[in-house]
Amino acid sequence: MLLRRLAATASAPSSRFSLPPTIRQILARPSPTEEPATISGWIKSIRKQKNVSFAVITDGSSAEGLQAVLTKGKDDELLRKLTNGAAVRFTGRLVKSPGAGQSIELLVDQSREGKIQLLGECPPETYPIQKKDLTTEYLRDHVHLRARTSRIAAMLRLRDGLKREMDNWFEAQGFYFCNTPIITGNDAEGAGETFRLEKIQASHPAIASPQEVTPPSEFFSRPAFLTVSHQLHLEALATAISRVYTLSPCFRAERSLTSRHLAEFWMLEAEWVLPDGDGVQGICDLTEGLLKDTVGAVIGNQDMDLLWKDREGSMRQALLDAVQSHQPWARMTYTDAIMELEKAHFSAPFEYEPKWGRSLKSEHERWLAEKLICGPVFVTDYPAALKPFYMRANDDERTVACLDLLVPYTAEIVGGSVREERLDVLQQKMGDHGENDAWYLDLRKYGGAPHAGFGMGFERLISWITGIENIRECIPMPRWTGRMLL
Amino acid sequence: MLLRRLAATASAPSSRFSLPPTIRQILARPSPTEEPATISGWIKSIRKQKNVSFAVITDGSSAEGLQAVLTKGKDDELLRKLTNGAAVRFTGRLVKSPGAGQSIELLVDQSREGKIQLLGECPPETYPIQKKDLTTEYLRDHVHLRARTSRIAAMLRLRDGLKREMDNWFEAQGFYFCNTPIITGNDAEGAGETFRLEKIQASHPAIASPQEVTPPSEFFSRPAFLTVSHQLHLEALATAISRVYTLSPCFRAERSLTSRHLAEFWMLEAEWVLPDGDGVQGICDLTEGLLKDTVGAVIGNQDMDLLWKDREGSMRQALLDAVQSHQPWARMTYTDAIMELEKAHFSAPFEYEPKWGRSLKSEHERWLAEKLICGPVFVTDYPAALKPFYMRANDDERTVACLDLLVPYTAEIVGGSVREERLDVLQQKMGDHGENDAWYLDLRKYGGAPHAGFGMGFERLISWITGIENIRECIPMPRWTGRMLL
Repeated sequence: MLLRRLAATASAPSSRFSLPPTIRQILARPSPTEEPATISGWIKSIRKQKNVSFAVITDGSSAEGLQAVLTKGKDDELLRKLTNGAAVRFTGRLVKSPGAGQSIELLVDQSREGKIQLLGECPPETYPIQKKDLTTEYLRDHVHLRARTSRIAAMLRLRDGLKREMDNWFEAQGFYFCNTPIITGNDAEGAGETFRLEKIQASHPAIASPQEVTPPSEFFSRPAFLTVSHQLHLEALATAISRVYTLSPCFRAERSLTSRHLAEFWMLEAEWVLPDGDGVQGICDLTEGLLKDTVGAVIGNQDMDLLWKDREGSMRQALLDAVQSHQPWARMTYTDAIMELEKAHFSAPFEYEPKWGRSLKSEHERWLAEKLICGPVFVTDYPAALKPFYMRANDDERTVACLDLLVPYTAEIVGGSVREERLDVLQQKMGDHGENDAWYLDLRKYGGAPHAGFGMGFERLISWITGIENIRECIPMPRWTGRMLL
Repeated sequence: MLLRRLAATASAPSSRFSLPPTIRQILARPSPTEEPATISGWIKSIRKQKNVSFAVITDGSSAEGLQAVLTKGKDDELLRKLTNGAAVRFTGRLVKSPGAGQSIELLVDQSREGKIQLLGECPPETYPIQKKDLTTEYLRDHVHLRARTSRIAAMLRLRDGLKREMDNWFEAQGFYFCNTPIITGNDAEGAGETFRLEKIQASHPAIASPQEVTPPSEFFSRPAFLTVSHQLHLEALATAISRVYTLSPCFRAERSLTSRHLAEFWMLEAEWVLPDGDGVQGICDLTEGLLKDTVGAVIGNQDMDLLWKDREGSMRQALLDAVQSHQPWARMTYTDAIMELEKAHFSAPFEYEPKWGRSLKSEHERWLAEKLICGPVFVTDYPAALKPFYMRANDDERTVACLDLLVPYTAEIVGGSVREERLDVLQQKMGDHGENDAWYLDLRKYGGAPHAGFGMGFERLISWITGIENIRECIPMPRWTGRMLL
């Protein structure tokens, strides 16, 4: 009875709620029908003539603004306050635009139903976001306002759009999105560059008597850190619901000032039970499928056009070629990559000599992607000594079943591996690494299934596909050593 | 030329990648066609007979398992190891099931193409997840394995499903998903119960000489906290791209041990420019529309049936009534709520006396939702003194334009407000509150648009709609004072 009722109503939402359309939604309509509309937004530009003014307004929903044609009203003072950056609400009619550059415009005829409301003035003398080109450094200093520039707004929309494509892709592949913890007692990478939480007063100040002073203690009864990776927690979930992923913040207390590092960044991480016969090549297949399908779905949109405008055309073409290629991306082992690097080093030396057993430096990674392959390349099977304990040992006993995806200009954007599922091998390695958390071994001891996963730096991915040079411009409010505004 | 090429290929993804179907995907198919299939999963139950065994396996993708019929093979040892919790891979044919309880089963005929692989044993003597009912406390102690229970797995899938519905709903309403910072210098609620990051060594240990000992310093050059709310940052983005939301972790260093508090929880927060004439009622409309549409979309699914099984039917019925009602949910001012509470207190006293100017206690909130209204109720316009500085002052100068959504059993799940957009009023209030961050005032000074927002505790929402009593069971890996496993 209950079930029948549920089934009958499942597809009929009770709410008829709807906000007024955004500029993006209006511009997406087939053709205007003289319909009345009220649009809120900010003035991007305004040209005042004797009897009519032309204002382009944006609500941030679209790379394009909407032109409003304002007929002269009685309030000259109001018109004077319509300056760049002012928040306004225009009521008028959507009509076919006679001008070039836009198909629809808003006719605000103040002698008829047209109405101009000034929601918030924007003093032109002091407004930090002037129309002239502002440097990235200047905008970082004004991070609370920089989303009002068209490029940062486009980046924000692109993040949203790419994330939606990824959510849909993972859903179609049977994955579940999970929220794994941010505060943890683990240090997944073993590198130690983690943020630690301060101890706190044992009693809440409001209830402790002023006389009673207790030393600060660990809130969680043990040292607590900000996670550097969600992998270990995802592994616990993958060995229960088979296919999981997350897009979640990660933290590194690195004193790094490069264009590729942030102290707080977002990582897309997936973990899944491997299908029959799959190993490293299966991880490459999934990663490549994900990127080709999801980046391919956003690569032609207006925000991408805006972001690539005035940038080197050949770089965008290379990106297009990579994403739209029906050929698999190049794959090579670390051992082969070192051989190629050694050959290249002989004729044109790198700063760091490439040598088997050493990690690849950024200059090596970029050479592989930019010079040798001229596109994305999976480098697989690194020496075990360079990689964390959880990666599956290969039969050669020198290398592990892992991969890095290297792309032109941005270098590494993905790192993944088959996870060691053999209890005895893992126990031995964890002994070696001084890690002995029983829970992680339990995942193998009790119905352990061979599984694999990867992590993808979301800002690095955005940087690669947009050509934005520094990942500080690929996140709304960046944090790095010495810098945390807001 | 470039654009044309993009347009031509936009809808043709280059990848043909696909993982094998999950049990959920298989069960969703119209009818089996004797097709061969290989399924990986864990044994939920097994019944061994002389010539045939019946195993139900789950891959965690579905509330239902898949029955596999295993004909006898040559390897008796293998069959012996097929115990509850063992990871297996079965190859067989999907056929119509003659038995009751399932429509499809997997026939694994080992004399033909059928194959049984044991991926990982599960020693029955020590496996912590036995079939007998396990207490929630026991499962919290085994949090790394508890997703293998059907209830926790259902909760994980429900979180995923509800989040997807919300993403789609917000997209349709013109909102953009944004990743706001976790580490911040702000304390949005002004309550002070925030986690603070420890100072770190000024030089990285690897590069500092052993002689050189520097005192620890702030990594970001100023004190850094874990955010308690994403509101302020969302406001900065809403005054640029109009409609934004996030589902992001928030932190409270509260020594609270109630069933409604976690030290780390996920909050859905939205912030948007208010349409013409909208105020508190507009926030209620949007919140109610969101909840009716998205909860309504998942309320009849199998995971909800599983989670509500053996629970009080009237509670679920009340939830159904609320979500499927075509009538708006009840709305009352704080002042009216206090009057009702005072009347009730006269006949049956509360622990805390209700009185205008005092905050509502949980017992008051629950009485309003459970006894007075018998359903969700928005309580609006609280006294200014009880609420943070950023809420818009009402004309009465005593109250602010805010709302809490109270629901039966869970009490408050949403808090929201119109934000003070008047620069002079805000300046005065921030002075009062000792807050003087110029950036927040800039959002009003330069093209400030009237806007509003709310925060919704995601675990509390899950608790309300599933009937799970404690929000520690509404998140994969809960953290509270004294407790942080993994």
